Amino acid sequence: MTFTVNSYAALSKDAELVPYTLERRDLAKDDVLIDITYTGICHSDLHKAHNDWGTAIYPVIPGHEIVGVVSAIGDSVTKVKLGDCVAVGCNVDSCLECASCKANEEIFCLKGVTQTYGGPDPRFPGHITAGGYSEKIVVRDHFVLQVPKELQTAELLPGVAPVLCAGITMYTPLREHNAAKGQKIGIVGLGGLGHMGVKLAVAIGAEVVVISRNHKKDDKAKELGASGVIASTSKEELAKHAGTFDLIIDTIPFDHDVNVYVPLLKNHKTLVIVGHVGAFKTSPLSTTGLIFGDRRIAGSCIGGIKGTQDLLDFCAEHKIVSDNIVIDMKEVNEAWKVVGETASRYVIDIAKYRESNKA
Amino acid sequence: MTFTVNSYAALSKDAELVPYTLERRDLAKDDVLIDITYTGICHSDLHKAHNDWGTAIYPVIPGHEIVGVVSAIGDSVTKVKLGDCVAVGCNVDSCLECASCKANEEIFCLKGVTQTYGGPDPRFPGHITAGGYSEKIVVRDHFVLQVPKELQTAELLPGVAPVLCAGITMYTPLREHNAAKGQKIGIVGLGGLGHMGVKLAVAIGAEVVVISRNHKKDDKAKELGASGVIASTSKEELAKHAGTFDLIIDTIPFDHDVNVYVPLLKNHKTLVIVGHVGAFKTSPLSTTGLIFGDRRIAGSCIGGIKGTQDLLDFCAEHKIVSDNIVIDMKEVNEAWKVVGETASRYVIDIAKYRESNKA
Repeated sequence: MTFTVNSYAALSKDAELVPYTLERRDLAKDDVLIDITYTGICHSDLHKAHNDWGTAIYPVIPGHEIVGVVSAIGDSVTKVKLGDCVAVGCNVDSCLECASCKANEEIFCLKGVTQTYGGPDPRFPGHITAGGYSEKIVVRDHFVLQVPKELQTAELLPGVAPVLCAGITMYTPLREHNAAKGQKIGIVGLGGLGHMGVKLAVAIGAEVVVISRNHKKDDKAKELGASGVIASTSKEELAKHAGTFDLIIDTIPFDHDVNVYVPLLKNHKTLVIVGHVGAFKTSPLSTTGLIFGDRRIAGSCIGGIKGTQDLLDFCAEHKIVSDNIVIDMKEVNEAWKVVGETASRYVIDIAKYRESNKA
Repeated sequence: MTFTVNSYAALSKDAELVPYTLERRDLAKDDVLIDITYTGICHSDLHKAHNDWGTAIYPVIPGHEIVGVVSAIGDSVTKVKLGDCVAVGCNVDSCLECASCKANEEIFCLKGVTQTYGGPDPRFPGHITAGGYSEKIVVRDHFVLQVPKELQTAELLPGVAPVLCAGITMYTPLREHNAAKGQKIGIVGLGGLGHMGVKLAVAIGAEVVVISRNHKKDDKAKELGASGVIASTSKEELAKHAGTFDLIIDTIPFDHDVNVYVPLLKNHKTLVIVGHVGAFKTSPLSTTGLIFGDRRIAGSCIGGIKGTQDLLDFCAEHKIVSDNIVIDMKEVNEAWKVVGETASRYVIDIAKYRESNKA
């Protein structure tokens, strides 16, 4: 059995998003039905809809930064109850039995993780997942997160949605590479991911320096708590900070020269790349900065469910949410045109959209 | 004051090595005079003499894999005594006061480390260092290592020389990345460095797999204790071993595609590059293998003095030395033509050379 919900979908790679009546599955015994309140717009929504990765299956209903309210649960669900304020991130299913899943890294499930939208859904053959640009979503209980009470205010809740992707993408490498009080941590790029990285690293107690092409975002960086900005185009500024960083997280999602940042690290320290670029074309990797200082380049991919809940609890403790601009669903195509131009995440008011569909 | 010793030198980038009368400094109070017994031929000897790195200062007297006997010591030297069998590696001085030196990483001295040959020698302005292709060498006591008694046999001693560069270059990343019994460790390339890496990793108790372009070196790999060889040109063989390695050390000293090896690693594990390539030209770094598995690429550079002594002690315990082919000094130009074609290191019999000069 299925039921229908209103959504916005991309029907082909060059088309704008349009209203679409989506079929959702009835609840399995371990499923949770969520009436979505807010959905954040992530840059990967555009990549997927535009088929930049060659993996689009149309219609694409994007959205993997979701907060909402539990409106129904399957018979075996105990993790949440009706009325709970919950969240869903980039993944909605995995085998839960392999070594990666048991290590709280569902994202690396050896049988393949199920993406929140636009991917096959192995437990429901033939079904393609659909995301948060819709009134309601059905998610396996394990993948539903609790939004802490402190973050459930009208002021903070819209900014919780981007925590589920932008936030956890930055929090995972901070934890994995032992970010700590007193360290000097660099954040390359001050967009949606970067600004969350600054907030989280500042909350950890680190000195945070933004690394940007120029000084246009100096005020924003300082407002977020950064101690300053290094212009990556200035050899003098790079030289001044050479060998001083304990960790650098590079959020740039397109081809760029990572070799520039490596010498900024102390010996034995790591540059973490979180933007999936594919092959770097403009600047081949150089061994110089790596070998003469035993420096490292690592990748990091979003995060697991336990880590995401830890992050939500950390955000509650430190009152951290994403800077955000709330828009109506009908403004989504306009928002897509300017995604990435600001550190603030666009967040769609899905509760309002659902109400408007009832009228 | 100075004194003269016989040596072989490159007088220009394209010239063969020729006999050269070298001036060495008289001993400072913390200096050790070593009558050299054996000097290994390292591929970087050729790079330096041919000015491949643009840093050659002629005459170049190469050689940084040195064993010998202490024949004089300065007034303040207590680390060694006359007659000790000692060794010298790639570095002969550093500030000994900076954070890197205090962390036993003289190689990363913040004021610059002094290379064993062909580089400026800050404590002796105007002096350019000269290496082990010579009868004797003068080295600051801190940089002189003790050759353990177990390695001082006629059979083992020639193979000790390459431990000082090829050996420590492999031992440092094994230790830094916590190589341990029961792990699966990959060694890319089975030359001078690679074959030492196999011996050391096997001695640690790891399962060691050689990664080579083809299967021509299978017998050699197994003789060294490796469990097998993966042909990096075979997609099937790569796929079979995907996600199974705890550590891979890549010894290839020229441009190649490191992206091939990254997916062989388990999640969170590291590929260490020890061959200084500069910028990879043929295959730009790809984020795919790094991000989808939180994998890492690190550099590693030779090692410090304490680590090198630890290695010599480890080699004594496990009776490990480099495979080697002992040659006369007058055969050095012939040996240079075939360096890298075999896992065995060419080692110059300097004691014999010194005796022949007396005749």
